[in-house]
Order: sequence, then structure tokens, then C-alpha cells
Amino acid sequence: MTTLGITDGQVLRPDTTVEAADVLIDQESGEILDVEPDIGASADEILDASDSLVMPGLVNAHGHAAMTLLRGYADDKPLEAWLREDVWPVEAELTGEDVAAGTRLAMLEMIRSGTTAFVDMYFEVPDVVAAIEEAGMRARVGHGVVTVGKDDEAAREDAAESIAVAETFDGAADGRVRTAFMPHSLTTVSEEVFREFVPQAREAGVPVHIHVNETTHEVDPIVEERGMRPVEYAREVGLFDPESDQRDFLAHGVHSDSGEVEALAETGGGVVHCPASNMKLASGMAPVQAMLDAGVPVGLGTDGAASNNDLDLFGEMRDAAMLGKLASEDASAVAAPDVVRMATEGGATVAGLPGGRVEPGAAADLAVVGFDAPHLTPTHDHVSHLAYAATGSDVRHTVCDGRVLMRDREVRTLDAEAVRTEATERAFDLVSRAE
Amino acid sequence: MTTLGITDGQVLRPDTTVEAADVLIDQESGEILDVEPDIGASADEILDASDSLVMPGLVNAHGHAAMTLLRGYADDKPLEAWLREDVWPVEAELTGEDVAAGTRLAMLEMIRSGTTAFVDMYFEVPDVVAAIEEAGMRARVGHGVVTVGKDDEAAREDAAESIAVAETFDGAADGRVRTAFMPHSLTTVSEEVFREFVPQAREAGVPVHIHVNETTHEVDPIVEERGMRPVEYAREVGLFDPESDQRDFLAHGVHSDSGEVEALAETGGGVVHCPASNMKLASGMAPVQAMLDAGVPVGLGTDGAASNNDLDLFGEMRDAAMLGKLASEDASAVAAPDVVRMATEGGATVAGLPGGRVEPGAAADLAVVGFDAPHLTPTHDHVSHLAYAATGSDVRHTVCDGRVLMRDREVRTLDAEAVRTEATERAFDLVSRAE
Ligand SMILES: [Zn+2]
Ligand SMILES: [Zn+2]
Repeated sequence: MTTLGITDGQVLRPDTTVEAADVLIDQESGEILDVEPDIGASADEILDASDSLVMPGLVNAHGHAAMTLLRGYADDKPLEAWLREDVWPVEAELTGEDVAAGTRLAMLEMIRSGTTAFVDMYFEVPDVVAAIEEAGMRARVGHGVVTVGKDDEAAREDAAESIAVAETFDGAADGRVRTAFMPHSLTTVSEEVFREFVPQAREAGVPVHIHVNETTHEVDPIVEERGMRPVEYAREVGLFDPESDQRDFLAHGVHSDSGEVEALAETGGGVVHCPASNMKLASGMAPVQAMLDAGVPVGLGTDGAASNNDLDLFGEMRDAAMLGKLASEDASAVAAPDVVRMATEGGATVAGLPGGRVEPGAAADLAVVGFDAPHLTPTHDHVSHLAYAATGSDVRHTVCDGRVLMRDREVRTLDAEAVRTEATERAFDLVSRAE
Repeated sequence: MTTLGITDGQVLRPDTTVEAADVLIDQESGEILDVEPDIGASADEILDASDSLVMPGLVNAHGHAAMTLLRGYADDKPLEAWLREDVWPVEAELTGEDVAAGTRLAMLEMIRSGTTAFVDMYFEVPDVVAAIEEAGMRARVGHGVVTVGKDDEAAREDAAESIAVAETFDGAADGRVRTAFMPHSLTTVSEEVFREFVPQAREAGVPVHIHVNETTHEVDPIVEERGMRPVEYAREVGLFDPESDQRDFLAHGVHSDSGEVEALAETGGGVVHCPASNMKLASGMAPVQAMLDAGVPVGLGTDGAASNNDLDLFGEMRDAAMLGKLASEDASAVAAPDVVRMATEGGATVAGLPGGRVEPGAAADLAVVGFDAPHLTPTHDHVSHLAYAATGSDVRHTVCDGRVLMRDREVRTLDAEAVRTEATERAFDLVSRAE
């Protein structure tokens, strides 16, 4: 057994209290052995955590990693115009190598900001999985299905590809990669495709991940044409089935009404809240406090870098707390411990991935955050600082599955300079091809 | 003449275009001599700006600097309860040395995040000014007046102190320090005090800075008791007087109606938008796009660190863009160039301070932002990255009045370790005295 010791730090426990302790990790199993004072110094490898907080690695529970290539390419436009005029024309030109380069850039940024696991809905999944294997992160990945504008055969092919890659890659990268069937949304995928392929996802033993209730443009047609709310319609076509042993999870849920929140709570359906994307696209304010009150599992996601424009979950915690208060018209809503839980254990639960807790037996997915910066001084309350003042740049070390992915801000599994250079070249080339 | 050259960078011009150029500075006058390619290398001192953007130093146009001592001390509470239960009891214990320590911590953080000028409404102004002189920043400072709960004599004493320190310190620190008369708000200062002391501010040649329309609790009593909107009442007692040669400016303006926006535009009154504070205290969403459309001068402020919880204006730009879209229900509102202008030239205009433009003859108040981080890759658009993806940690060098305050992330004018240690000790001692 080789061990990793994280020494001399403060540790964020699952109840969001903080105590001085070392963390001892078995690098072969990738699990935390123990959390106690003075147990780390004799480990095979040591990470110093003095003046620092050891917390669960952050979970980015919804995104489109390779969209880093379009970071800042087109801002300040509404969702529909932005997708049609800017995003889709460029995405039509994407190659597998582009996607791999963009995903590597995303992972470089995520590892540097303490994120150890992410959910990815995109294309060219084999290239995505190969990049994840290399970077050492944990992920749930899938092929995003869009059937609108396609004939029946092309639509069924797209959905079949999503099922096929989910079957092929579930458990890849020593089990760090899990998969899902990923229809893009209830309005961009036909009812027939849901009815035919959701049962195939069940058979394959993978959950379904989908965008729901992001904008009113997605809600109104369903209400008008079908006389039911989007979550009801989703259940109608087989999603959020409490009999399934898989937890389906939706991104956004901005315009969910109280009946939909109740239905998600009853069925165990998960929600990934993406506050920055919802603000930047003026989509609206999700009823997050109501979801937490009802017992809906809630995680946080950055969505793609083109609508954020970074992948820093510390920013997302801050945005979630602030937007949650505004949405509830109550400064005590969506408090600091709530957003810290959403970014860690909540995301792991929603995405069905290990991690999210610093305790014996849990996956050793961890971030070590330095607390000696002026903007984190004084430290009256560590959890407040995580929610409101820290940024990804404060992360010193990142550990996933017991392996050190970043040490003293040096990412070990990716060559930062090469990743940046390739992503820049491919991004400019891609945009010029699309224009 | 000693010169400073900023070489090999891209430069953000006043029209928010970006071009490759050096910046040459006269350190004695503190002014920019020229902005042209290849003019910096023979200067007496050189700052490297390769892979970086030279931009105007950021202006934090509303805050309470020494409240850094209370960063994270009490979160997730509404404004009124938070002030009464947490902030005011602690502030009652503050000494001049506490305020100096908290202000130094605030300036350390601001210099590290590219801010060169700030507005400060607080107490113990002589200590604040001494700290600013030492740190080398530019500021407009004042003594915050609160008369509610005071007898007539104590109220007049408080206001007289605000006038006296404004007279004494205007032009201090080689002209880097300017002052204002600073009544706290329209509901915490009596009508008599406004009527007596605003004319004294005019005589002293200083503007008035005040909180207006932050929460509905501040608006409703004025509307009910006086039958007029807060900005009308403010004009009634002498503020926002277009005949004055001083520009009065208000913080927040969240609940300003269209008539108030129009009145501010007509009188030249300035607004400091504080989006993070407004979200965190659930105060509401200011009509910023309407203000910009009407021609109201708008700057950005962090407000105190206790309601933010950091002093990073990059976060404030992002929050302003995002909240502005949400408030307007329009993803094209409050766009990236708008928030970059608000954080620089807008803040300088509102606060009546030099700076805000990189051009010959302007004050040499500058920030050099590194663009080689993964989260700023690729660079399709520098201005988008400033608004949406950069953080204060990306700032490499900070220059104020021609003097290098931070070089390669090392602050030269303050001893970071000593400042952090003293602020921590004083913060814990202060809180224990108040409890
Ligand atoms: Zn998405
Ligand atoms: Zn204030």
C-alpha cells in the first residue's frame, strides 16, 4: 500500500464544521483511510496543508467542457440567438481533436480550481474519455442528442450513438468515467426518441441527463401543446422514474413551479443549478431554496465556458448564494453552508459519482485551499470564505482518486503550456472555418 | 524626469479597443507621456507586459475599507438585522488603530487586484488618510454621519466632524487624497442636519456622498412621510444641485424609479452600483441599463467586505454584467464594454478622481493583467475576459500616480505579512470586546 498524507491543515467535515486534522489516503484503493490529528507525516507522499483547508474536491455537475474553445467568442446575447447564430455554426465544424483539445483545456482549468469531478454533455465522446483518462479526473460523460431539424433516421442514429457510447465507456479509466444517456432538452428531442431510447438507457444501466426549464421558450410550447408542465411531460416519457435504480438529473430547472419541485423531490430526480449561466443568458432565477426545503438533491454546474465564462466552482458557489437570496427576497436564503454542500456532496449525489465527503472510506477526491491570502483575512469563518471570498486561484493542491493532480499549483497530469497552445490554435482555426 | 515604461503588452484604449503598444510614464508628474509601440524600453524603470493587457487602474467607488476586519463575521442576514445585531455593536468598539489596520488590509487586497483608487465612508479619518499616504493609493474619503438615536448636539457634532475632516484632508498625500461630506443615508440623518451642513460642504468645495435607495426600508418612510421619492427629497435638502461645481454621488440606487433616474441624469448626479452587496443583502436589482441609457454617470463599488465579501472589482464587473441582464430580462443589457468602463472611467468620473483612461496626459493609474492563464484561454476578446473570466489574482503589476505599487504580485508599499497579522489580531480582539 502506498499512502498520501495531507498534513497540518484544517479539515472541512461533512457537517460543514472545521477541525485541525491530517488526512491519510490509500493511493491504491483511492480511498481516505483516516482523518485524525498527526497521522499524515509518515505517509509515502506528503502534501502540506498548513494555513489551508482540506475540503472535498468540487463537483461540476453540468457542463460542456470543450466549449472552452468558444470562451468569450460571443457574449451579451440571448440563449436562442446565441445558439443559432454563434454556437451551432461553430459546433458543426468541430472535429474529435478539437473536442479533445477543448476538454483538456477545461480540465486544466478545473484541476487548477479544485474541481475533481465533472459531468460533460457533448460530442466525440471517445476523444473526451481519452482526455479524461490522461488528466486523471472523474466524470460522467455522454453524447448530447438533438433531433430537431433531422429526419427520422438521422434522429434515431443520433440517439443510438448516445446509448452506444454510454454502454461502451461506462466504467472506463479504472472506473473513474461513468456515462449517461443525454437528450439535449425536452423541446429539441422528439417524443418518439424519448419513448424508444429511454428504455434502452434503463437496460444499459445508465441514468438520463437533460436540460429542463432553462428558459420560458422551453416551457411554454410544452404547456401549450401538451397541457402539462415540462417535468410532468418528462415523467410521461419515462424520465425521473422512482422505480429505476438510476438517478436521472436535469440541468437548470429555472422555471420549475412548486408542483415540479415536489415531483422531483418525490421521485429522487436531481437538479444541477447553474447560476452564472442563468444570469448571463438572462434565463431567470431558479427556486433553489424551495428545492432544498423540499429535499431535492441539488448540485452546482458552470455550464459551458461560453456562457459563464470560466469553470471556477468557487464563483458558482458565490453566485448561487447571492442569486438564491435575490430569488427568495431573503438574505438568509441559500446560505454559505448550503452552497458549499451543493458544490461538493450535492453534486456527487446528483451525478451519481463518488466523493463529496472528507471521511474514512470516502473516495480521496480533495482540494486543499490556502487561507493565507489578504482576501481571506481574517478567518472568522472558513465556510463563509469558501462561499463568498475564495476563488479557484486559492487552491494549492488537487487530489482525485488518491492521485495528486496538482501540487503547489503545478498540474502534473497535463502539460499546461502545450494544452493552452493547442487549444488557442484550434479555437482560432475553428472559428475561421465557421465564419 | 524619471520614467516608467510598460513594455510589450496590449493596451486597452478609452473606446475599449485593444492594440499592441508600450506605455511611457513621467513618474514625477504621475502622468502618462505616450502610448505607442516600442517607446518603453529605454525608461528608467520597466514593467514587462508581455502576454498581458495594460488597462486603467480600477476604481472602487463606494466602500467602507476597514470593514475587512468583519469579513465573514456574520453572513446570510438581512441588512437591518445585520447592521443592528452584528455590525454596529462591533463598530462601537473600533479604535483609530483598528481602522488603520483594516484599511491597510483593504488596500493590500485592492492593490493586489488592480484597484488604484477608492472611495471610503468610515470613521477615524485621520488614521485612514495616514494609511493611504503610506500605501500610495488614490482615494476620496469622508466621515460617515449618522444622527438617528442622537440628541441634537451629538448629531451636530457628528456632522461638524464630517465637514472638518473634509476640509482638513482635501488634497492630502500630494493631492492623492480628496474628501467629501458623507451623511450615511436619507433615513439615518435628520433633515435639519442636511439643511445646516450641505451648504457648509459647498463652501468647503467638497461633494456629498450618501447611500440612497438601497432597500425598500429606506424608500417607503420617505415616500409615506414626505410624499416624494428619495432623490426628490435629497434635492429638496440641497443635494444633486446642478449649480454646484461638485458632483454629488450616491451608492446603490437600487429602487430608483424612472423619474429619479431622469433627475440624476439632468443634475449630473453620480451612481455607484454595488451589485454583490445588493445581491448578498437581497436588496434588489438596480436599473443600471436605464441609468446608462439616460446618461447617468455610473461607477462600481464593492461596498464593505462584510457584505461582499471581497474587494475584487473583477468580481464586481462580472456581477454587474450578470445582474444587469437579469434586471433587464435581456441578455444583451449591461454588456462587457459597459462594465469595464464603469469599473474604470465611470468610477473616476463619479468619484471626481483622476485616472480611468490610458492616454497621453491622463494620470498614470494602471493595472497590468496577465492573459496567459488557462481560464483566459483562448483570447477571442480581451474585454469579454475582463468582464467575465479574469479575477484580481490575474493582475501582475499595479501603478498609481506613476508609482509602482505592485510588481510581479509583490506589493511594495505595504508589508503583506505584517498587515495580515495585525489585522487578524485586531479583528479577533475587536469581536471579543463586542461580544
Ligand atoms: Zn448546458
Ligand atoms: Zn455602503
